[in-house]
Amino acid sequence: MVATSRTALAELDHADPLASCRDRFSLPEGVIYLDGNSLGALPRAAAARAGRVVGQEWGEGLIRSWNQADWINLPRRVGAKIAPLIGAGPDEVIIGDSTSINLYKLLASALRLKPDRPVILSEVDNFPTDLYVAEGLVRWLGPPFELRMVERGMLSGALDHRVALLMLTEIDYRTGERHDMKVLTSLAHERGTLVLWDLSHSAGVLPIDLGAAEADFAVGCGYKYLNGGPGAPAFLYVARRWQETIEPVIADWMGHARPFAFNAEYVPADGIARFLTGTPSVLALSVLDAALDVFDGVDMKQLCAKSMALTDIFIALCEQRCAGNDLVVASPREVAQRGSQVSFRHAQGYPIMQALIARGVIGDFRAPDLMRFGFSPLYVRYVDVFDAVEALVAILKSGEWREPRFAQIAAVT
Amino acid sequence: MVATSRTALAELDHADPLASCRDRFSLPEGVIYLDGNSLGALPRAAAARAGRVVGQEWGEGLIRSWNQADWINLPRRVGAKIAPLIGAGPDEVIIGDSTSINLYKLLASALRLKPDRPVILSEVDNFPTDLYVAEGLVRWLGPPFELRMVERGMLSGALDHRVALLMLTEIDYRTGERHDMKVLTSLAHERGTLVLWDLSHSAGVLPIDLGAAEADFAVGCGYKYLNGGPGAPAFLYVARRWQETIEPVIADWMGHARPFAFNAEYVPADGIARFLTGTPSVLALSVLDAALDVFDGVDMKQLCAKSMALTDIFIALCEQRCAGNDLVVASPREVAQRGSQVSFRHAQGYPIMQALIARGVIGDFRAPDLMRFGFSPLYVRYVDVFDAVEALVAILKSGEWREPRFAQIAAVT
Repeated sequence: MVATSRTALAELDHADPLASCRDRFSLPEGVIYLDGNSLGALPRAAAARAGRVVGQEWGEGLIRSWNQADWINLPRRVGAKIAPLIGAGPDEVIIGDSTSINLYKLLASALRLKPDRPVILSEVDNFPTDLYVAEGLVRWLGPPFELRMVERGMLSGALDHRVALLMLTEIDYRTGERHDMKVLTSLAHERGTLVLWDLSHSAGVLPIDLGAAEADFAVGCGYKYLNGGPGAPAFLYVARRWQETIEPVIADWMGHARPFAFNAEYVPADGIARFLTGTPSVLALSVLDAALDVFDGVDMKQLCAKSMALTDIFIALCEQRCAGNDLVVASPREVAQRGSQVSFRHAQGYPIMQALIARGVIGDFRAPDLMRFGFSPLYVRYVDVFDAVEALVAILKSGEWREPRFAQIAAVT
Repeated sequence: MVATSRTALAELDHADPLASCRDRFSLPEGVIYLDGNSLGALPRAAAARAGRVVGQEWGEGLIRSWNQADWINLPRRVGAKIAPLIGAGPDEVIIGDSTSINLYKLLASALRLKPDRPVILSEVDNFPTDLYVAEGLVRWLGPPFELRMVERGMLSGALDHRVALLMLTEIDYRTGERHDMKVLTSLAHERGTLVLWDLSHSAGVLPIDLGAAEADFAVGCGYKYLNGGPGAPAFLYVARRWQETIEPVIADWMGHARPFAFNAEYVPADGIARFLTGTPSVLALSVLDAALDVFDGVDMKQLCAKSMALTDIFIALCEQRCAGNDLVVASPREVAQRGSQVSFRHAQGYPIMQALIARGVIGDFRAPDLMRFGFSPLYVRYVDVFDAVEALVAILKSGEWREPRFAQIAAVT
């Protein structure tokens, strides 16, 4: 049984070894923020760094800051900072571009590693963009290239000798359901298939061990649980064993062995740097760099334990306090099978979520009927879970979600 | 004859209709900044906006700002703001990713518009990265795809029936030499070839008219004369007549007809929006958005006239004051044939440039022997040209560039 009284939850906050991490964030008054799975909150250090990189490094240092402020190494430095959060070596991760672009880079390059296998395999319920990117690539390449999509349970059977790459997202963005990275990677390898993991909804909140799982490639988002700010640059992981054989499809000076020689001939840089493209987005990278300091001294096992406790309590409280209100839990009940997110289905999920937001409890909605709540253990307190559920109870009881102002559909990411 | 006395130049500043634009920038004390062709100076409005987008929009607004602060439309809104600077319609430009990624997107998609023509044509002296990107693409596609590179003077002869696309940079990054966009585009079209222009070194300082030239595609950089900050997002132009037939090679939810429906099937958005990929880099886009306000009320013809005057005076003064010092002008003497940049060759260009920077006159160096000076007419004064040349004279006269501290080679972009 989980604790569910407000007093008991306040006790948990009091005893929480991560409680002080909340002070590392700048959070608005009167808001319970349960959408860190979509856009992480603002770390105070990130705000300070934004001012410094603009005012001093750009404004005062100007072009000199490429060397003096070491802008040029940001993609690698910040990559090395993310590495321990995902079980990678410091030389296995770089930051830049978006998750989509990184995914495209790796898909296109990985296909060339298995020239006799023209299929990318994924699940039909993978994040739609990941499927769009893969589908766009194979459509552009033409036959025999192909994107094969199957139901989650059919993946093993679909891993045949034509599959070059298995592309999966660790945490389902709708329900929070979690794949077993180690088991699936191992299975794919047995069939001679490479594996690429999208860690967008898991990096920064779950213990991830790409190395132990022997994953080949990974990508992930900088602005969810990594708190890098809206549209933050994304990360790209290539296992060390592939770094010298893989050929980047987008060949660029930043991935050149000697970028400032301005040679006519392209020579890929050693290691993962060959995947760098374009002048680094210095402002965004600097903000992400500072944001990652919120993980200083944080034990990822403690973080994950708190995430599990928060989500368990949320499910228990919702079912206890909202019984009879047609809320159906859409996330796995078994804590090891889900990420730091709980989703409920409700036919009126959209207006109910809008009414919650109006009360300062911010989650989000995904069509057709999913109310999503993300729990970022660095700044979400146990009492927040209680108060969020109480707000939900009040809304369901009063029927205030029926107010016309909550009915309109707006684009929300 | 151009005016070259300091008094005469101060008079020009006094009469300069653009003189007040300098106040729109935050410039360090004691610096003459002649590297706006590499990294533009900091607009005051950009610094203020950076603070607001981080502190208020992200920190306070959190996920709600996607709608409330209209983050979601930044790529199109900022694109429409750049459009008049390059002679494009507001619906012909979007902002996002880097110049390299945008170039890759357009090259890959454009090849599909001419399926019977497998060649991309460019000049050997094009910006190396542009060549790397094209070369990487054709290498990855394999034969018959090919990148053909010829000397500038041989372009016309190389435009045969196998050339799908002519890819050129308007202003040569080394010498500032300018292509005639209208003539070359028209010539290519006569041969059935599409044309893509890289405007990185011309946007924001020269009057550009993509529409009048009937250019098909263009890309360009946000952090040079557009002053968007280090690594600012880049722009991508597709002429309206191609927007419905061209198919994006990187298919992404942001370029989807209904991004928030999360449908399994990809349907490209109408118009240029289909080239959007990844969650917009909100911080960087907001800063670029604010930076572009420095062009408010600026007459591009006046801007260009000042650019021509500054560069003419710089050449005249250097040749007058530095005669006998082995400085050889590398830029075209005819003002209509160059951009807002003057380059000099000198065997000791590297240490001389370092000595200049130590004196607060910031230009840059490109191997093997090019000293580059960029003139951004919005913040460079006529007297700055005089003072910069005087610093150069003093360095050459004293031989201070021989000091060991100026000899070391560092990476400079």
